[in-house]
Amino acid sequence: MMEQRPVFVVSDSTGTTAGALSKLLEHFPHTEFTISRLPFIDNLEKIEATKLSIEVAAAANKSLPIVIMSLGDMALRNKLKETQAYFIDLFSTFIDPLGNELGQEPLTGSGIAHGAVGHSYDERIEAINFSLNHDDGQTDVNLDQADVILVGVSRCGKTPTSLYLAMQFGIKAANYPLIPEDFERGTLPASVLKHMDKIFGLSIKPERLHSVRSERRPNSRYASLENCRKEISTAENMMRNHGITWADSTSRSVEELSAIILQKIKQPEQHIHPSER
Amino acid sequence: MMEQRPVFVVSDSTGTTAGALSKLLEHFPHTEFTISRLPFIDNLEKIEATKLSIEVAAAANKSLPIVIMSLGDMALRNKLKETQAYFIDLFSTFIDPLGNELGQEPLTGSGIAHGAVGHSYDERIEAINFSLNHDDGQTDVNLDQADVILVGVSRCGKTPTSLYLAMQFGIKAANYPLIPEDFERGTLPASVLKHMDKIFGLSIKPERLHSVRSERRPNSRYASLENCRKEISTAENMMRNHGITWADSTSRSVEELSAIILQKIKQPEQHIHPSER
Repeated sequence: MMEQRPVFVVSDSTGTTAGALSKLLEHFPHTEFTISRLPFIDNLEKIEATKLSIEVAAAANKSLPIVIMSLGDMALRNKLKETQAYFIDLFSTFIDPLGNELGQEPLTGSGIAHGAVGHSYDERIEAINFSLNHDDGQTDVNLDQADVILVGVSRCGKTPTSLYLAMQFGIKAANYPLIPEDFERGTLPASVLKHMDKIFGLSIKPERLHSVRSERRPNSRYASLENCRKEISTAENMMRNHGITWADSTSRSVEELSAIILQKIKQPEQHIHPSER
Repeated sequence: MMEQRPVFVVSDSTGTTAGALSKLLEHFPHTEFTISRLPFIDNLEKIEATKLSIEVAAAANKSLPIVIMSLGDMALRNKLKETQAYFIDLFSTFIDPLGNELGQEPLTGSGIAHGAVGHSYDERIEAINFSLNHDDGQTDVNLDQADVILVGVSRCGKTPTSLYLAMQFGIKAANYPLIPEDFERGTLPASVLKHMDKIFGLSIKPERLHSVRSERRPNSRYASLENCRKEISTAENMMRNHGITWADSTSRSVEELSAIILQKIKQPEQHIHPSER
């Protein structure tokens, strides 16, 4: 039987960063982790309740719970550490030593900004709105403001990738589906082609596309393996002829696709400073 | 003049986790950080190029660059550390010690899963599609499958919050705008009200709403401060009468709103195990 480990993500704020760190657990596939997120743990009463939850989990399992913690207040931090657990402490490991290097006391709790690093919050929201308005080739209006235009056959992953780029990086990502009309014409529409330097392609394996489309429209011609094969081969030929780089989304997550796309497009430098947000 | 620090996020994979860790820099508002993301640094040649970039940045600035690194391969890790920089090393600080605790060698590089922790990748994509299809009260179809239904006046932050919940947590988040028709009737529509246990409200300060709406439709009645005041007061009264909890989005990010909402709704336990993705 696989080893079970309870994991607690404890933060005096939203727990976004501590929660992201729990991705590190994916390096250990022989353990099944059960994660509880406990944000806004910012007073002694809540720390006591958290300790109790950890102790209950420890009693129910036979191994030490893992606690990923981001608590700015030293007294709360020490109180929590009285519990029997394996602690990953963002403050004592990262933030305090970094403060020494920078010669600054870290801001804690509600004092800190909560934008995504490197982009002002308003820019991210604007990018999300842009990507929603330019999803699925809805409009050519303001397409010149796009940072990237994703192209590919229907259901190959353009929409979630566009939204992830917008949400995480403030990238204005439009997307345009390659449809039978484009295949007949043999080229992308002129309104998209004139932004050639911003176009990035997505493709997918026919078997996977068949499976994804079948969930939406079972037994349709649209979802048939034969049609998926034909669309993908035509789309890849078209991208090849246009000199468009593409990535295969079959076994890649939106995080991976976004990292690949970010390398290909021109990005403004990312800055963090207090005027943001 | 504010101190400048170049920051490099170096990973042999997407750099998602290392990138998330760069949010910790927001604890230090007296320094301006310029972040370069370098994903897929997985061979010696790329490490050498990375070292060069760091050295160029060090020469251009008068302070030590900060390097946040996630490199599974020990030789690559050591090579990079020959550079003059302040290193935050996810492997030697977190992953290797955690491996000792778990009695396992960590998987590295392309071997590891890339789903969001606690949710299978397909669940997240399904949640994104659900949230897009149920954005802005578009449809009542399958509303019973929603994990949460956000309500609030137009442009108070429902859409980005719904998408963040779906993208990060695999939460199926519908949203429904409160519009003049609802105000006249004095209640939410029956199709939404029957899911009362899933409803969560958002509100906003009139001045902020006026500013957000004015960007979209300047000098309209819709955007006027008077109308914003009236809509918000009516919406809050309606939510109060229905017993709906709400949060003010005026100075909260989607991360903060999501953390608040996650506490209020019933969530399935989150598990990570190798069968995911």
